[in-house]
Amino acid sequence: MARKVVTFGELLMRLSPEEHKRFIQADSFGVVYGGGEANTAVSLVQFGYDAKFVSRLPAHEIGQAAINTLRQYGVDTSAVIRGGDRIGIYFIEKGAAQRPSKVIYDRAGSAFATAKAEDYDWRGLLAGADWFHITGITPALGGEAAKAALEAVRTAKEMGLTVSCDINFRRKLWDKETAGRVMAEILRYTDIYIGGRDQAEELFGIPTNARDDSDYNAYKAVAEQLRERFGLKKVAITLRTTLSAEDNRWAALLYDGEQHCFSREYTSHVVDRVGGGDSFAAGLIYALSEGMSTHDAVEFAAAASCLKLSVEGDCNLMSADEVKALAFGNGSAQVQR
Amino acid sequence: MARKVVTFGELLMRLSPEEHKRFIQADSFGVVYGGGEANTAVSLVQFGYDAKFVSRLPAHEIGQAAINTLRQYGVDTSAVIRGGDRIGIYFIEKGAAQRPSKVIYDRAGSAFATAKAEDYDWRGLLAGADWFHITGITPALGGEAAKAALEAVRTAKEMGLTVSCDINFRRKLWDKETAGRVMAEILRYTDIYIGGRDQAEELFGIPTNARDDSDYNAYKAVAEQLRERFGLKKVAITLRTTLSAEDNRWAALLYDGEQHCFSREYTSHVVDRVGGGDSFAAGLIYALSEGMSTHDAVEFAAAASCLKLSVEGDCNLMSADEVKALAFGNGSAQVQR
Amino acid sequence: MARKVVTFGELLMRLSPEEHKRFIQADSFGVVYGGGEANTAVSLVQFGYDAKFVSRLPAHEIGQAAINTLRQYGVDTSAVIRGGDRIGIYFIEKGAAQRPSKVIYDRAGSAFATAKAEDYDWRGLLAGADWFHITGITPALGGEAAKAALEAVRTAKEMGLTVSCDINFRRKLWDKETAGRVMAEILRYTDIYIGGRDQAEELFGIPTNARDDSDYNAYKAVAEQLRERFGLKKVAITLRTTLSAEDNRWAALLYDGEQHCFSREYTSHVVDRVGGGDSFAAGLIYALSEGMSTHDAVEFAAAASCLKLSVEGDCNLMSADEVKALAFGNGSAQVQR
Amino acid sequence: MARKVVTFGELLMRLSPEEHKRFIQADSFGVVYGGGEANTAVSLVQFGYDAKFVSRLPAHEIGQAAINTLRQYGVDTSAVIRGGDRIGIYFIEKGAAQRPSKVIYDRAGSAFATAKAEDYDWRGLLAGADWFHITGITPALGGEAAKAALEAVRTAKEMGLTVSCDINFRRKLWDKETAGRVMAEILRYTDIYIGGRDQAEELFGIPTNARDDSDYNAYKAVAEQLRERFGLKKVAITLRTTLSAEDNRWAALLYDGEQHCFSREYTSHVVDRVGGGDSFAAGLIYALSEGMSTHDAVEFAAAASCLKLSVEGDCNLMSADEVKALAFGNGSAQVQR
Amino acid sequence: MARKVVTFGELLMRLSPEEHKRFIQADSFGVVYGGGEANTAVSLVQFGYDAKFVSRLPAHEIGQAAINTLRQYGVDTSAVIRGGDRIGIYFIEKGAAQRPSKVIYDRAGSAFATAKAEDYDWRGLLAGADWFHITGITPALGGEAAKAALEAVRTAKEMGLTVSCDINFRRKLWDKETAGRVMAEILRYTDIYIGGRDQAEELFGIPTNARDDSDYNAYKAVAEQLRERFGLKKVAITLRTTLSAEDNRWAALLYDGEQHCFSREYTSHVVDRVGGGDSFAAGLIYALSEGMSTHDAVEFAAAASCLKLSVEGDCNLMSADEVKALAFGNGSAQVQR
Amino acid sequence: MARKVVTFGELLMRLSPEEHKRFIQADSFGVVYGGGEANTAVSLVQFGYDAKFVSRLPAHEIGQAAINTLRQYGVDTSAVIRGGDRIGIYFIEKGAAQRPSKVIYDRAGSAFATAKAEDYDWRGLLAGADWFHITGITPALGGEAAKAALEAVRTAKEMGLTVSCDINFRRKLWDKETAGRVMAEILRYTDIYIGGRDQAEELFGIPTNARDDSDYNAYKAVAEQLRERFGLKKVAITLRTTLSAEDNRWAALLYDGEQHCFSREYTSHVVDRVGGGDSFAAGLIYALSEGMSTHDAVEFAAAASCLKLSVEGDCNLMSADEVKALAFGNGSAQVQR
Repeated sequence: MARKVVTFGELLMRLSPEEHKRFIQADSFGVVYGGGEANTAVSLVQFGYDAKFVSRLPAHEIGQAAINTLRQYGVDTSAVIRGGDRIGIYFIEKGAAQRPSKVIYDRAGSAFATAKAEDYDWRGLLAGADWFHITGITPALGGEAAKAALEAVRTAKEMGLTVSCDINFRRKLWDKETAGRVMAEILRYTDIYIGGRDQAEELFGIPTNARDDSDYNAYKAVAEQLRERFGLKKVAITLRTTLSAEDNRWAALLYDGEQHCFSREYTSHVVDRVGGGDSFAAGLIYALSEGMSTHDAVEFAAAASCLKLSVEGDCNLMSADEVKALAFGNGSAQVQR
Repeated sequence: MARKVVTFGELLMRLSPEEHKRFIQADSFGVVYGGGEANTAVSLVQFGYDAKFVSRLPAHEIGQAAINTLRQYGVDTSAVIRGGDRIGIYFIEKGAAQRPSKVIYDRAGSAFATAKAEDYDWRGLLAGADWFHITGITPALGGEAAKAALEAVRTAKEMGLTVSCDINFRRKLWDKETAGRVMAEILRYTDIYIGGRDQAEELFGIPTNARDDSDYNAYKAVAEQLRERFGLKKVAITLRTTLSAEDNRWAALLYDGEQHCFSREYTSHVVDRVGGGDSFAAGLIYALSEGMSTHDAVEFAAAASCLKLSVEGDCNLMSADEVKALAFGNGSAQVQR
Repeated sequence: MARKVVTFGELLMRLSPEEHKRFIQADSFGVVYGGGEANTAVSLVQFGYDAKFVSRLPAHEIGQAAINTLRQYGVDTSAVIRGGDRIGIYFIEKGAAQRPSKVIYDRAGSAFATAKAEDYDWRGLLAGADWFHITGITPALGGEAAKAALEAVRTAKEMGLTVSCDINFRRKLWDKETAGRVMAEILRYTDIYIGGRDQAEELFGIPTNARDDSDYNAYKAVAEQLRERFGLKKVAITLRTTLSAEDNRWAALLYDGEQHCFSREYTSHVVDRVGGGDSFAAGLIYALSEGMSTHDAVEFAAAASCLKLSVEGDCNLMSADEVKALAFGNGSAQVQR
Repeated sequence: MARKVVTFGELLMRLSPEEHKRFIQADSFGVVYGGGEANTAVSLVQFGYDAKFVSRLPAHEIGQAAINTLRQYGVDTSAVIRGGDRIGIYFIEKGAAQRPSKVIYDRAGSAFATAKAEDYDWRGLLAGADWFHITGITPALGGEAAKAALEAVRTAKEMGLTVSCDINFRRKLWDKETAGRVMAEILRYTDIYIGGRDQAEELFGIPTNARDDSDYNAYKAVAEQLRERFGLKKVAITLRTTLSAEDNRWAALLYDGEQHCFSREYTSHVVDRVGGGDSFAAGLIYALSEGMSTHDAVEFAAAASCLKLSVEGDCNLMSADEVKALAFGNGSAQVQR
Repeated sequence: MARKVVTFGELLMRLSPEEHKRFIQADSFGVVYGGGEANTAVSLVQFGYDAKFVSRLPAHEIGQAAINTLRQYGVDTSAVIRGGDRIGIYFIEKGAAQRPSKVIYDRAGSAFATAKAEDYDWRGLLAGADWFHITGITPALGGEAAKAALEAVRTAKEMGLTVSCDINFRRKLWDKETAGRVMAEILRYTDIYIGGRDQAEELFGIPTNARDDSDYNAYKAVAEQLRERFGLKKVAITLRTTLSAEDNRWAALLYDGEQHCFSREYTSHVVDRVGGGDSFAAGLIYALSEGMSTHDAVEFAAAASCLKLSVEGDCNLMSADEVKALAFGNGSAQVQR
Repeated sequence: MARKVVTFGELLMRLSPEEHKRFIQADSFGVVYGGGEANTAVSLVQFGYDAKFVSRLPAHEIGQAAINTLRQYGVDTSAVIRGGDRIGIYFIEKGAAQRPSKVIYDRAGSAFATAKAEDYDWRGLLAGADWFHITGITPALGGEAAKAALEAVRTAKEMGLTVSCDINFRRKLWDKETAGRVMAEILRYTDIYIGGRDQAEELFGIPTNARDDSDYNAYKAVAEQLRERFGLKKVAITLRTTLSAEDNRWAALLYDGEQHCFSREYTSHVVDRVGGGDSFAAGLIYALSEGMSTHDAVEFAAAASCLKLSVEGDCNLMSADEVKALAFGNGSAQVQR
């Protein structure tokens, strides 16, 4: 039976110049609505799960357009509160070759950031669900967002849901110290930790000691320490290397307390780099919910994020079968006819 | 010799769905940068004048893109201050037939609205200029905008520039009482008044007494009272009638203390309705600076705004010769070959 | 409380050249998914109602894309059966001025047309609903479609739902005799009849006797005879006049057994002519469900279809408030700012 | 049996900003290849005739692209000579409402203008053909173009083809005196004269004496004098009135020596105004070749040009049946379904 | 002198989302018309040959648009029969990186598949031609297609044309056994065999025994056995390796009974992977017709298909000179200026 | 303080099919205005310098559009003379993989090529400037262009400006002998020489003696001889290798009379190859003006041109900080967020 997952976060309007144009060359912007937790919800629905997204958006038509995007891909948006003045916006200029991508945030004062913690009735919102997922972006958004995030994970934990948290530390949103303190609190209620290469060091002072970008084994000790310190069930660390604006190397480690399993390493041509981590989270939630082994779970999650990079927009619009074909097949990308 | 005009106001990013799409149908937005006073500056440069635009924009690339738009059309942007966090944004959905256009503003906290009055050195900014132009939107933007606007007109007046002011009352920005009080103050330093049909009644309690939309003669008395009350040189009243989202009727009255001159009445198919008033202002500034008679000046200004409605974007990209061909020609829109 | 409406029909892929291009000029087609009953469902959701669409679509990604379009606009698609080989397609070339629009159908063998009547469990599908709506296109599609349609209306009637039927006679799909016989059967279970100008004459031999296109009063007698012959509650007749490919005149008559109420007559510039009738049906369902008077109901429904013509695509993406503003306001299409 | 028509002229690259953009707003140009005589050839093929186009184009890929456009629509391009340095170009900015369309020519030194008269073997080129058509643009292009044009009509006449000539006087290409002299020479070999309102007066001093734009009867005398002076079989005068950049009135007169037949008058919304006259010529060639009466022929030709205005690009992509439906039908532009 | 080639097959409408979008993201489809044998015809015309395409297409405008595409590139379409209800369609979603391309066929009941064998008068159709080309897709399309294909090759052989056949086995169209039996029959009349890596094994049970993808020598024995079994003159085997959705390796073997010649191996970035094999066939037909050596012929054909992968759409729009520059030059892709 | 640079050359209209389309597939062209010396001016302004561009363009709107492009990016266009008949045009088809890009020039008779040397008042134009830059394209354009170029460098030298010259030899514009003679003359007034790999050999007979494309050391001797022969201050040689139409290797050598400094070697995925050399020149002018060491200067200039290849259009729209991040950073193209 399809599992029910709830995610909580901000949904942003993303505006990007066509193709490889720079901001100062653009006379139109492609518009997509996305955000870490929303992206994970969309991906889970494509895998066949039910996903409910909790957020707050303005009552005007732009807010509605954002909701419609999620509905289009089957996410349950009935719990999105309508209110506030504006939707958070970010502008992204796609890089190319040696020219990096560029992001300009304009999210202050958004409907989500100005929500009150009491706007969310977590008991009701989580009723009937199996899993709750959040990222470190949500508590970073100021106002009562951190308070709401904490209430969410605590309630989820109490109600017996599995809780996953993707650290997703963003220096532009808050400082290391605050982030470290708040995230540590959230991790107390978390079962499944997901984080990037250096985030354990930045936020929690757990040193990596990797010789270089490809020294993946160094992350085993990091995973062990994280698991122990926060009483986690499983720890996933994504191992991304940026080769150029359009080329990435991607692998992941999943540690379950006994085994350290590494996925294959993928080298990808990037169509759209946003949402790679969010699709990894969705892949992991799905794989673990389906009862895959630690080895298979990390392969599935890594393949999911690899495939996301080939899809335009924030969301991973791949079915579970398509992900399995890459994760457990020969990966040759042949047309079927 | 080309006259030098200075205008002062906010420059906004305008985002609009392609063609006739509604907001909830859009997957891209055309982007244009505009604003009342900037639009007037652009139009004046197309007429062959020098125009300097004074404003404040964020230092990032989106701010730069806004400046580049003005530079492209030849406006002097050297006096634009760079600072603040964001550019004001508005979303516009073009109407069609009986479906009206829709505007969603997202301009709070913009670089312009958060500027200090002291950021602008009016003596320096106005040195060497012949004319200063402002609209009622600028003082409505909160913070110290009204203070800066007042300092601007006072200084311009002291320095001997001609001062024009387009009332441009926007209910969504401020209330009638505040607007009436502030605009009355600004009009003390104004030579040329420009305003829409009902604005004298709304802000200053000068009743119109028009029987219906086509009773243009009723506005003669309004113009007289305005001129007398505020000690104006000339009063222009634009007489716009919306027939449908795509069809307009447009005429204007110019009163110089002696003559009440009405322009021809134009019925236009509207390509882009934004900026019609701003191009009227530019037309009037040009016509009066060139020494045209009251009769010719109102014809030129009305033809300018009529032609604007046929141009995509905020700005009137018509030359003075093109405007004259309509204002003083047969208006038949024949191809020359 | 939001009413629950169920509609039943085929969802087609519509492919159309950009703007005014002819088929032989096109190197891309805009793609939209629509169909009479689906369009009505979409419109009802925009009015704030719940709408469930019953249909059959292939299991592949194109079938999914069709479903996603409905989900985007909030329609409940959980009852869409997945199966069959292909989605019905139609190509439409938009006309201009004296050049008429052109439609090429390619809908034979579609997933819907090859469905079995037994595929639909009407008791279950209609449980909890207030209203059932169908058009004359559904029974015209061959195979067991007519049988399924008949079972649907009969069951709906038995379960106490209000049943509406839009005649929508299409000569290219079936002949007059068959259509007349089948539709008469369906009308036995129908409360609210909706039909175009000449359809009562074509299918049921009820003569119109209109002097010309503007002799609306001639339709009063038609409505009376229809109501009597089929035991209907209310009869709506839409009165459309094609002035050119881009210009229409539109009005409607609603007869409730006592009053014959005519709506205002609208003259519209047409952005997209598909779905005008479907949005009239949605308007009528909403207006009658809300308990509007016969007079107000026909005004609301006519305004809804008038506004639809200004919207790209098959569906009327207008809110109830927007329709009311036209139906009961001054209709001048002014921007609010 | 399909008639064989030969036309002779220049094929130009036409570059135009998208939609209603002005030149200074364009960052892309739509590209179409057309020219008076080529347009007529394309239209005739859509009517079911064989048409051969004689011209000269550079050997490079842009020249090939021009040829491919004609081949796409079925024109025989085997007689196009390849040589010379460049293709003639013109830029066209579409007007809107009161803003006229604007044309910038860049055709000097084109492959066609630099061709030698001896490049064309008219005996061979015209073998097997029934009709030869030319316009006054061809001899205006300088170099040996006039000489080649004259040889063409003379040879065609000698070989027994029907010869038609559309005056198409363009002030930017040559002066009235030269044009009058050269065209008089060409008309000596012409059977069917086609010309605009004032061209007989401009080139041949035959006064029009029309009271105003709608005094169509005044052209009867003009037609009579033209027929007599040049020994023509039939004289067609097109009666176009520009209402705005997007609206036209269009009618025509055909005089056969006995009857003066006027077509209906069409008021059209213009999608693309280029090629209206060329499609009239094609309509007339077809109608007369098919043996239609003078009355029907002028109706067919006028309907053809009316429909052209609704089609993007230079060419009239309407079938003979579609033209007949307008010329001899009710003209209501209804969709068939 | 230009050789005359006749090809026979279905022409399909191909619809594909823009750029890298997935089907469920598409709101427009690029449209191209292509098919194996049509693509080969187009390529041959670009090489300077005459090519006639024999097929059947519906009489409506979409059928005409398909024909126009071929005419645009110079193919003789005079032998295309008009009739039947629909054009076959396929949808293709372009893959990227590890995400494979996806094809959805909707070709059942097409005008071609429902043609009768007697519709084609092969004696007349092949008169004056030098070469006949067909692929294994044509006989796979059901109805009388296989019968017509067989009559075509038999007649061609009798009339002394060279016959080439590209095996092109498509599992989705027919099963191995039927395909093996029918293709064996066709190969009895074939001179030049073209096939992919594994097709000899799949259809005719000739084992490959290749160690891996790069063991090209293993195919020598396959070619020998094919030649012997079917009495072929020459056997070409294409050796394609899919590295990712956007990267390919491509080489070919040509065996003439004496020499086994391998082409260079190309590694290509793929712009459009459709039509690679068809352009190989065209390259081979051209090279052999021109009398190139076996070595040069396989180089030319391999270079042709390599270049095709860099061209959008189904067809190889490269001239013979451009192919030679790659096949026999240094292949560095430098701009000439 | 911002340095003032003057550049002199032609500004062309560049027309290119969208994406990877071939000329014969294009139905629209992207339009960009560029040219060697204009591109360098644009790049310098993005670095924060003042740049004035001297040229001649027609007085019509297309000429204005060209000027507006430069103004948009901040170039001082006040010295552009308006006159002449046409703007030079070139068509460029972007290559892909093994298919090379293709350029078709149509620049004969342009406003620039028909200018008189006396049109330029070099004393006035260069007043207040620090640096003058020119390329070998300008004197190659015929008419009095070479004379004007020579007067420009001579005057610049006399007035004490630094003079840089990019050889930029184009075989399609002039022959080696003439080019060698004229460029030698210009180099007499030049301080900074910039040239490609083989240009010293082609124009001045200075042999390269490089073993292969990667034998960079061979260019040391070339630089030494150039410096000595023409009395140059510094010699820069760009070392570009075309791997495919979309892949390049790029490095550079700068010789200052003492040190031979090589930049890093970049391997780039090319978004737009036009303007790579022009951005190198801009980088070098900036770096040397800022007083960077020879080593840093060549790194900065090479990084600038590497980044240009990732930007659409002719011009390098990168800031000095962005170039420094690549030249002196780790070059990993990571998003900042």
